[in-house]
Amino acid sequence: MTHQPDQSSLRRTDHAVDSVFVSRWSPRSFVPQDMPEEDLLTIFEAARWAPSAYNVQPWRFVYARRSDAHFQKFIDLLMPFNRTWAHTASALVFIVSDTIMPGSGDRPDQPSAYHTLDTGSAWGSAALQATMLGYHTHGMAVTETEMIREVLNVPDRFKIEMAFAVGKLGDPNALADGLRDREKPSPRRPLSETAWNGSFKG
Amino acid sequence: MTHQPDQSSLRRTDHAVDSVFVSRWSPRSFVPQDMPEEDLLTIFEAARWAPSAYNVQPWRFVYARRSDAHFQKFIDLLMPFNRTWAHTASALVFIVSDTIMPGSGDRPDQPSAYHTLDTGSAWGSAALQATMLGYHTHGMAVTETEMIREVLNVPDRFKIEMAFAVGKLGDPNALADGLRDREKPSPRRPLSETAWNGSFKG
Repeated sequence: MTHQPDQSSLRRTDHAVDSVFVSRWSPRSFVPQDMPEEDLLTIFEAARWAPSAYNVQPWRFVYARRSDAHFQKFIDLLMPFNRTWAHTASALVFIVSDTIMPGSGDRPDQPSAYHTLDTGSAWGSAALQATMLGYHTHGMAVTETEMIREVLNVPDRFKIEMAFAVGKLGDPNALADGLRDREKPSPRRPLSETAWNGSFKG
Repeated sequence: MTHQPDQSSLRRTDHAVDSVFVSRWSPRSFVPQDMPEEDLLTIFEAARWAPSAYNVQPWRFVYARRSDAHFQKFIDLLMPFNRTWAHTASALVFIVSDTIMPGSGDRPDQPSAYHTLDTGSAWGSAALQATMLGYHTHGMAVTETEMIREVLNVPDRFKIEMAFAVGKLGDPNALADGLRDREKPSPRRPLSETAWNGSFKG
């Protein structure tokens, strides 16, 4: 990958973590080409096996590949800023989650307390599987949730959680001024500010 | 791993997903032994590199290893049902998330819309890194959140999200009746009910 920035100075790890976690980062420049549907389904397959409370699997994915008729519609559902770069992605995905935990046997339907958390773990698995396949992903906030719901036919009981772009890493020089300089892996705060023995110490 | 159940019949995949996603499952019987702190920190290091909105990294981990003075205190904060099996874990972890997105430059602090979702992706990375190290994890719901907050000194602005147990896979025969038969990897619904092209089709 010619354009892969040097990560050594930005992403120093303190422990012998698997490289997939550190290799995953969120670019904005993608090679504007299609991707095989099989690769996208493999990414969703990783998400499929994520853990969830009572194994209810609250996550759902709605996708468009750049070669299909839905792609422009998906672009139009993004926040204006994200539209400026996400149009180069090979696929765009909206993630929604079931706010109701379906009943089973004698147990009735009930509100889910973990649908967003569990959907986050599914999204993380998708991003990691994409990395393993040589792709990059970029998660996006969603603001026009009612428009997304209407255009994508998402039932009321499902929450519009987020979107993400996926594709092969593109040339940073293809980005607009202001984005080009930000096209690199982000750092993290030290683990000593994140994980503590015995009690919260932030 | 002598007690690893045969997964082939339970976890058939439709796409060539990496084996780590399918190998990860949530047992209740762990070998009741300590684990090196370095392994636990490596698990948190994987979580450290998870994606988050504006890279605010809202997740925090508070942990106890079974060899340290905090372990029994952590057991006591679990739901009664989970106490019946989680006491064999090598470590217990509570995950909390920052509900406030810290300001930066001219931007003031503001409520975070993605703290739970992003914390879910960090938890997923932790679970996968644990799998890569030969451990198993089991996520747990939390109900006594005010007690957890008090005992672990968690500030009000942080949400108590979940807990998890980590350890090496134990003997299912060590489990109580009723749990023994459930000690196997759970299935998933087909991907065709989870991911759709163009619009929601559930």
